[in-house]
This record gives sequence, structure tokens and C-alpha cells, in this order.
Amino acid sequence: MVKRARVLIDCEDAKGLVYHISKVFYDRGLNIENNREFVDSEKGRFFMRSVVTGEFDAKELHEALVSVVPEDAHVRVIEPRSKKIVLMATKESHCLGDILIRWAAGELEAEIEAVISNRDNLRELTRRFDIPFLYIPSDNLERKEHEKQILEVLDELSFDYIVLAKYMRILSSDFVHHFPERIINIHHSFLPAFIGANPYKQAHARGVKIIGATAHFVTTDLDEGPIISQDVIPVNHRFEWKDMQRAGKDVEKIVLARALSLVLNDRVFVHGNKTIVF
Amino acid sequence: MVKRARVLIDCEDAKGLVYHISKVFYDRGLNIENNREFVDSEKGRFFMRSVVTGEFDAKELHEALVSVVPEDAHVRVIEPRSKKIVLMATKESHCLGDILIRWAAGELEAEIEAVISNRDNLRELTRRFDIPFLYIPSDNLERKEHEKQILEVLDELSFDYIVLAKYMRILSSDFVHHFPERIINIHHSFLPAFIGANPYKQAHARGVKIIGATAHFVTTDLDEGPIISQDVIPVNHRFEWKDMQRAGKDVEKIVLARALSLVLNDRVFVHGNKTIVF
Amino acid sequence: MVKRARVLIDCEDAKGLVYHISKVFYDRGLNIENNREFVDSEKGRFFMRSVVTGEFDAKELHEALVSVVPEDAHVRVIEPRSKKIVLMATKESHCLGDILIRWAAGELEAEIEAVISNRDNLRELTRRFDIPFLYIPSDNLERKEHEKQILEVLDELSFDYIVLAKYMRILSSDFVHHFPERIINIHHSFLPAFIGANPYKQAHARGVKIIGATAHFVTTDLDEGPIISQDVIPVNHRFEWKDMQRAGKDVEKIVLARALSLVLNDRVFVHGNKTIVF
Amino acid sequence: MVKRARVLIDCEDAKGLVYHISKVFYDRGLNIENNREFVDSEKGRFFMRSVVTGEFDAKELHEALVSVVPEDAHVRVIEPRSKKIVLMATKESHCLGDILIRWAAGELEAEIEAVISNRDNLRELTRRFDIPFLYIPSDNLERKEHEKQILEVLDELSFDYIVLAKYMRILSSDFVHHFPERIINIHHSFLPAFIGANPYKQAHARGVKIIGATAHFVTTDLDEGPIISQDVIPVNHRFEWKDMQRAGKDVEKIVLARALSLVLNDRVFVHGNKTIVF
Repeated sequence: MVKRARVLIDCEDAKGLVYHISKVFYDRGLNIENNREFVDSEKGRFFMRSVVTGEFDAKELHEALVSVVPEDAHVRVIEPRSKKIVLMATKESHCLGDILIRWAAGELEAEIEAVISNRDNLRELTRRFDIPFLYIPSDNLERKEHEKQILEVLDELSFDYIVLAKYMRILSSDFVHHFPERIINIHHSFLPAFIGANPYKQAHARGVKIIGATAHFVTTDLDEGPIISQDVIPVNHRFEWKDMQRAGKDVEKIVLARALSLVLNDRVFVHGNKTIVF
Repeated sequence: MVKRARVLIDCEDAKGLVYHISKVFYDRGLNIENNREFVDSEKGRFFMRSVVTGEFDAKELHEALVSVVPEDAHVRVIEPRSKKIVLMATKESHCLGDILIRWAAGELEAEIEAVISNRDNLRELTRRFDIPFLYIPSDNLERKEHEKQILEVLDELSFDYIVLAKYMRILSSDFVHHFPERIINIHHSFLPAFIGANPYKQAHARGVKIIGATAHFVTTDLDEGPIISQDVIPVNHRFEWKDMQRAGKDVEKIVLARALSLVLNDRVFVHGNKTIVF
Repeated sequence: MVKRARVLIDCEDAKGLVYHISKVFYDRGLNIENNREFVDSEKGRFFMRSVVTGEFDAKELHEALVSVVPEDAHVRVIEPRSKKIVLMATKESHCLGDILIRWAAGELEAEIEAVISNRDNLRELTRRFDIPFLYIPSDNLERKEHEKQILEVLDELSFDYIVLAKYMRILSSDFVHHFPERIINIHHSFLPAFIGANPYKQAHARGVKIIGATAHFVTTDLDEGPIISQDVIPVNHRFEWKDMQRAGKDVEKIVLARALSLVLNDRVFVHGNKTIVF
Repeated sequence: MVKRARVLIDCEDAKGLVYHISKVFYDRGLNIENNREFVDSEKGRFFMRSVVTGEFDAKELHEALVSVVPEDAHVRVIEPRSKKIVLMATKESHCLGDILIRWAAGELEAEIEAVISNRDNLRELTRRFDIPFLYIPSDNLERKEHEKQILEVLDELSFDYIVLAKYMRILSSDFVHHFPERIINIHHSFLPAFIGANPYKQAHARGVKIIGATAHFVTTDLDEGPIISQDVIPVNHRFEWKDMQRAGKDVEKIVLARALSLVLNDRVFVHGNKTIVF
């Protein structure tokens, strides 16, 4: 039976990698629909993403590939299927709503297992789309205890990625370590950056002419981690900080959607604190 | 004789300002060609820039305006004339070259009095345009002594603005205090920001997807001060840090030219650490 | 009672307009919160939008203003209220969904009276937001007869603007003449432009590197009329035409939302075939 | 001796192409520094650009590659060398000046053989950079005769590409046929497009909110042909048409420089009326 697979390989660079890998495809009569490679010459690292079609056994193909690449290689043979995501949000609806609309239009390329929130504000919006809304209030709870409750809920669910659609509580390193390269976050970005409370107020006070948004994998703290996608829009002195915030929401939702689509299509490699996006 | 003036007023907000100011114009039979106002409601501050034409005496017009606005007002009646600038640069030629080309095409709206540099690299380029190149080497000189020599040279020149076209030595507060709101700088900008040596290397290591540039007035240190103009361009993992730097140069020169044009047209108000750009 | 009004004036340019108008405000003790003017010097036309607060009678204020401006002036004194819109759509949900999400979040600045569609596809999405979905099938109907049915439905509704959220049937001049400057449309835009069936296929065949969207008032045919807002995104050879279409949807929905917000805030003047957007 | 080559292959798509090509590299012990492929699935066309290093004989490598790819293949083995260009311009200096500045900074990756112009305006600017300025006046000359004179001059020169840096006379098909895929042009672009005299006046009259520029290979008429690079900037109603033109110049020069750099780095494939840009 003719099938399709996304093959992702990430390893130490070495001579002949493309040859050896393409030989594996060729020997099995597979057709390469799409192929992208990149060598990070500074770090001596090779990245390759191929979409192949033909008759193959995924396990056998994986083993064959592993046998021709360096030992440290990370080889994945992914047969496309609809992925599953869990959304986490707090009270702003722009990112959550945008994802729900895409889902309802059949354009998300993922199923939404649930929306988890530490507030009750987004219950009605979520209900409109017949998605389970799991309210886990954080009031009067220490982060550790709150996260324990979330982890228990997540334990009952089956999912590939957690999408923080404006989830406004910082996640502990402990929590994050459960889901390496599986949590995607969106946050506002500025030139220059502003740290601390209400960055929009700070950006306004500084008179910035551009505001932006960054989508990234979550590593140890909320606003760092490998960047997947970024974009900006122009603002000016006539924007009050609330206008900047409003304008920022449009960038945030588009950048998050773009990042999510890239991840769901297995187009994003993470290496160290950066990404290679094919 | 019919003349034209740019009138800039910056004062505490008060009821009737537009009425009182426009009455001054009306009583003198002046025509308003262009008029922009802005009230920073948070700070209670009023900004107005009008271009008026007609027969007037600049001194009399200034006095009349001062008499109808709050005491703290800063009123300027500017009869357009070609301004004069001094350029300071170090070794990179993209910003300097861009300004020289605009000047040679008669599109700069300013005369270039001189190029001052702490290195000798840009002598030939400057000479091509028959502009004085003043080489004040900084090697083995303490900042204070170096700046003293620059100040002596500047003292002999007549100019409105100093443009730092990739001048890579940090200016002391002392130096800056000589030229309040008269020094314009350009520097690269990133989301997030990177502090310290070679930010392009850092941005590259972090895998940023956007790089930008910020033009600003210089206040007490090189990379802060009221922002005049900003822009960005997209980059990706295939950019080595030198490619990012090269791409960054194109943004830098355009953003600096845009900022300079705004300043030369008296379109920029500074208030606190931000600008109002009309 | 202290109230707020948006005052919009659009007239032949004349000396003293700002003075006379601000005198009307001053004499009534009104405070100008925000004021923008523009003179189209080529056409000799004056545009002004002021937000004033204080105690006033809208009718008296309107009359006072009319008495000081040229006879051809169009003077509006608008006391902010939530406006009403009717959405028209066909089968794509990205623009409709985006507007519904903003509405549900209380961020639309308008009430949605109904969604009218010539297809049944968007019924479920509309129903999720408890908005009336009025299905007026166009199959086997001549345009004239179909529009007659729509006009009958519109006649029963009270609304300020019609928003074409990807309504894919061309409206006749007759229909459009019923709602001058009251119909807003969004359509994809390219450099260069492509005319005829499936412009995305044409843009793809031509290898464009940028695709965009234009929001505009509808005049006599679907894709012309005064432009309110535009934006673009980069694409490249790896985009199939369907990818371009998908990317285009994100631009379309943001540009339409931006245009709608400008119109709802009474920030858009139309003069001839262009707009002045304050 | 270790050398570097850019290998460009463009052929009908077929199974095993990557394998066969990479085997040629592997068998010769060549290292792949950089590799990009693209399959235009609609047209069944394969494109590949590899940068390889090692010891090789260019002729032998070329023959080996030709022997493993389909008969219609266009195979190029390019050993990087500084390319040569001829610039053609008329009277605007922004594009010419930008290229000259890059050249003077050693950043152009090409030598400039000469500037050919049908007007005398740019002589002084060109002279500043010690580049030959060849004035071939077009006044009172039919296009055919004028182009004959240009061709005679070009015949004496050795060059890879002709860059139209705002050359404002339309080139005949005859002229263009002499230099297939070797003439690069820049022109302003709008959404929508405007045809005929002074498009900036038309764009202004239409109130466009975005203006842009397109760099492309010249085919049979001046403003068509495969697009290499495009970009845009925002404008608004306060821009007179001359302001739009001025702003447009900044986009034009950056887009032309970007396109030229891509071409000089052998990164651009042309297929039909579109480009693949690696």
C-alpha cells in the first residue's frame, strides 16, 4: 500500500549523509516529494526533513536510516495523522478564539482535547465549540499544588502538544520538564524588551514605534525557549497603551497560529536554544 | 512678502489652546497649510505643529503665540532653511554612504559640514563627495581626552544636528549634555534584546526570526533615548550571524535616513523619554 | 450633563476654518480631547475630526458649526453609541469567525444584527454565537431577483454598515446605490494584480513573493472603491497556490477587522475614490 | 587543491535524483556545505543547488552529473568568481548610488564595468567612483537606432549581467533576446496595479495604503518577467504623490540590491515565468 511519511533526521554532520540517506529511500523505491536540509556549520550539525511516498514499513525504514547515520542521530519516521492538542488559557480570548475558529473550519490540522484554565472567563466561548472546558482555579493555591492538579488532569488526556494560548501563570521547571519541546507559548515582544509588570505600559512610556509577538517552545521559564515564529506591527504616539495591547493581540494570534501549524506539520527542529524551521 | 513658517508648540494642555493659537494665525491673515495636534492625555501635554503661509514677522508671531499659551510652553517659529549636519562614523560605510548619496542627489534637505571619524577607513568614500573628512584617532586616548578633541573641532563648525552614522565609540554624558536633542543615533535592535558584545552573534545563537534597527536621540548613553523611527526584516536559520549583520545594515540605513528626514523637517517633538512624530 | 461627541467636518478649504470651528467649541466651553485635520491641497478640500467633551446640545452644536463653514460642508456631530452591522458571507469562515470572536469578547464596538448568506455552510458557526443566520440561496436565481430578496430582508433590519466577510457574489450597482459608503468589502491583492478566475493560481504561476489584502468601501463593483486598509505578507516558491490562499486568509481577516474598527470609530472620510483615515 | 563549486541542476523530476546526484559527490569525496532542493509538483520539475567543496575537475564533475540526470537537464558547475555587471540608468540616482556605495565598500560581489545612460545627469555621481560613464543620448533617435549604439558599446565590454538601475526607456524584444535571463530590472509596484503615465499620481488619486517595488528578470517588455524579489512600505493620505515617489525610492533600491545579490550568488532559477530562489 502506498503511504507517505515525514522523515526527520538530526545528527552530527558527516560526509556522505545525503548520499547514504537518499540511498535508503532509493533502495526501497520511495519517491521524495519534498526534501530540505540544513547544516549548522558552526555547530557541525545536520538537519534533514524529507517527505517520501511509496510502500514501506515504518519500523524497517527507521532501522535502515539509523544504520547509515552517526550514532547520536535523532531519526523520526512520522506517518501523518491528526495530532491532538490541549489548550491552556486564562482570560484573554483572542488566541483561544482564533484556534477554535480554525478548528471549526477544519483548518487546524489537530484535534482539541480540552481547554484548561485557571479562571472561569473562557468557559462560555469554549462551550460554543463543544470542547471540554476544565476549570482548575489557581486562587489561594501555591503553584506546586495547582500544577499537581493540572498534571492529574493532563494524565487522563492523550495529546501531542500543550498550547499556552495566553495562559498567564508561570509554569515551574518541574512542570515543564514533563513535556520537553511539547509546550508552545506566545508572548508580546518589543524593541527594546521590557521586563516586569505591564510591558505595554512600559513600551508606551518609551514611545516604541513597533510591537511584536514571539511564539516559542517553553523551556524553563515562561518567556524564553527556542523561537518558532515572530512578527511585528507598527504603532505610533497616538496609541495609548491599551491600543498597543489591542494591536498586539492581532499579532499574537497570527504568530501563534503560524507556529502551531509549523509544529503540527513536523517542520520544526530544536537544537540547543534555537530552531530550524523547514 | 509671503513667507512660510513651521510653528511648533509644546505645552501643558489647557482648554481653548487650538482656538487661541488659530486666532493668532487668523488675526494675521495667515493660511494654515498643514496642522497636526496631539494631546498626551496621561501626561496632560499638548503638542501642535502648523505650517502657515502669509505675511508675518517671525519675532512678532512668536511673541503673540507665547502670550496665548501656558507659561511653560515651548514655542518655535521656524522659517524653513537648509539645515546643517555633522556626521560621525567609525568604519562601516552603509549609513554614511546612504546619506552622501542622498546629499549628492539634492534629496537630503541638509548640508553636510564634515565627517568626523575615529578611524581612517572612510576617508576615501568621504573624499569622493568633496566633504571634509576630519580624522580624530581614538587609539591610546582616554574617552575624555578624545571627546575634548572632537569638541574643539565641533566648536569651529556651525551645525544643527550631529548624526552618528555607525559611530562605534560610546559618548560620555558630558559630551551628550552639550547637544541636547541634537544627536541622532542608529543601532540594531532585536526581539528579545541582547546586551554586550556582538549582539548579532547572540541573536544568531538564539535563532531570532526578526532583526531590526532603531533611530533615536542620544541622551545619556549610546543606545537609549527617545525613539524616532524603527523597522525590522525577517531572517531565518539559514542566516549566519554575518548574513544577519549584512541584512541589518539595510534596515539601519533606511531607518536612519527616515529619522533624519523627520528631524530636518521639524516633525519630531521630544517629551520625557518618548517622541511625538508628526 | 457632560457628554462626548465626535465632530467630523469635510468641506472646501478656506482661510480661518480651524479658528472658526475651534471658536464654536471654545464659546461652548467644550474640551478638545483629540483633533486631527488634513487639507488635500490638490483638491482644495479640508477634513477635520475632533473629539470634544462638555455640555452641549448636539443639534445646536451642529447648527453652530454649519454656520461657520462653507456651504458645501458635510458636518456630523456623532454621539458615540454602539453601531449595528449586518454580515454577508458565502462559505469561507475566516473573516466571519474572526468578527464573531471579537464580538463575543466585547471588542467589536458593534452589535451583529444578522449573518446573511447565499450558502448554507456557515449556519453552524453562526449558530454557535446565537446570531440569526439568514439563508437566502442564490442557486438558479438571477442576480436581480436574489438581491431583491436580500433587500427585503435588510429592510426588516436596522443597521449602520454591511460587512462583506467573503461574500462571493458580485453586487449590482443598483444594490450598492442603496447603501452609499455603508458597505465594506475585503479582497485579496497582489503585485501585480490578477484579473479573472482564481487569482491565487495566477499569482502562483507568476511566482509572486508577496500577497496582500485590501479592505474598501464598495462603490459600483465588487473590488473597487475607496481603500480603507491594506497589508501584505511574504510568500515564496515553496507555497503551492493553496498555501498562498491559506496565508492570504490571515491577512484578509486582520485587514478587514482593522478597517471595520476604523469605520466604527468614525475615523474614515471618503472623498472621490480615496479615503482620509484619522 | 581544495576548491568550492556551486552546482545548479534543473530538470524533469524523476525518482532517485537526489540519490544519483549525491552519489556523484560522494564518489569524488566532495563535501556538501549547503544543499537545497525543490520539486515543482505541478510542473514535475526538479531544482537543486548544492555548494560542494573538495578536489574536483569542474569539467569532469559536470559530465558525471549530466550522465545521471534526465536528458533535458540544465547542469551548471560554477566556481565562484567575482562577476561583472553593466549598469544602465537614466536620471534618478537612488538605485545607482546604492549599488556604487556597496561596490565601494567591497560588499557588491561584482565588478562594475560601466554605467550606460541615455542622459547626462548621472555622470558626476559615476565619476565620483571612478567608473566609466558611457553617455549614449537617446534624443531624436528611434529606439532601434539607439539600441544599436548601446549594443555596439556592450559588445566591447565583458559582463555577466545588465542591471537596469532606473533605466527609463523601454527595451525592445530584439534587445532583450540578446541577453536572456541576464537583464535585471526594478520597478515600483502597487496594489492594485496602475498602468500608464505616472503611476504614483494614480496611486495617490486612488488613496493606496501600501506601495512597493519588484525586481525581476527582463523578458519581452520592461515591467514583466520572472520576479526575483519584492517588498512594500505603508503610506497614507498625508503622502502627496511626490512623497510616495520618495518613499518608493527606498524600497526600490533595497529590493534591487537584494535581487542582485541573489543573482550574483547563483541562487535564482528561472522556470517559465517564475523563479525559484534558494
